[in-house]
Amino acid sequence: MITILRMGHRKDRDHRASMHVALVGRALGADRIIFCGEQDDALVERVNGISRKWGGNFSASYSQSYRKTLRHFKGTKVHLTMYGEPLEKKAGEVRKKRQILVAVGSEKVPRDVYEMCDYNIAATNQPHSEIAALALFLRECKGQKTYAKKFPRAKVRVFPSKNGKCVKSYK
Amino acid sequence: MITILRMGHRKDRDHRASMHVALVGRALGADRIIFCGEQDDALVERVNGISRKWGGNFSASYSQSYRKTLRHFKGTKVHLTMYGEPLEKKAGEVRKKRQILVAVGSEKVPRDVYEMCDYNIAATNQPHSEIAALALFLRECKGQKTYAKKFPRAKVRVFPSKNGKCVKSYK
Repeated sequence: MITILRMGHRKDRDHRASMHVALVGRALGADRIIFCGEQDDALVERVNGISRKWGGNFSASYSQSYRKTLRHFKGTKVHLTMYGEPLEKKAGEVRKKRQILVAVGSEKVPRDVYEMCDYNIAATNQPHSEIAALALFLRECKGQKTYAKKFPRAKVRVFPSKNGKCVKSYK
Repeated sequence: MITILRMGHRKDRDHRASMHVALVGRALGADRIIFCGEQDDALVERVNGISRKWGGNFSASYSQSYRKTLRHFKGTKVHLTMYGEPLEKKAGEVRKKRQILVAVGSEKVPRDVYEMCDYNIAATNQPHSEIAALALFLRECKGQKTYAKKFPRAKVRVFPSKNGKCVKSYK
């Protein structure tokens, strides 16, 4: 079970980035996301709406305190940061854990997050994107099979197409 | 050589997402990005500034027409889209090409892009993020070694750290 913890969400500035974090988590096999920072019910509802439409069990919720969430989480806590240890070296270890929380920050991440987590992991030590870092982390943890994850009870499904769009809707 | 073509950039709405696309491309081993859509000199300059500071040869430029850019590109053209064929099945083929252009859209991608490209490739057929799709595409094309890419002439460098930040500046 993989939980994503999106820290420091700002309602106006991060709506799109936080949505992308959630969608990437869902598409690549995480199980749920907890948003921290400013409360944003519309965002939570939009993510859950995507799950209802596109299938699967991914769910979103809100927590007032990332500290409490980290403290009470029973399992392995991973913080994704460009300052951390190489993803390609650590993925093998993390992959074996059964309960994983992946903490993903927005701009500035408070110091204590680095200490509260069991791993600080970097998908390259270059500046890029928390959305990409999460995608790469899930890819390395789950392997290529994660691309073919099934989403039961979908109302809409896309079928691979060479140069067009093949979308089917189900009642 | 890998060129990223970021299509349909909107100055106000996409500044952050387009920046992330560029940074992900740079960090994971692409060589340059061409922005299309609204001209945004500040964005081009910001990306080139990152390269000057963090090293390497990644560069950004602007083109008025994605159609012209696609038409004149000599090499293999790949469009990343959730409607395409599975990344995990196509990466092996694409990996062998020497000149690759990766087209990445914003919201709505015009129909002719699907036809002008040699491949339409999906990193899952689920809705998520063009930033993540690009990261996963580069990861599958380049393999895990892309995480350890070197960036010569960096003025700032991050060294992996278990639970802190280790940053060195060079004159």
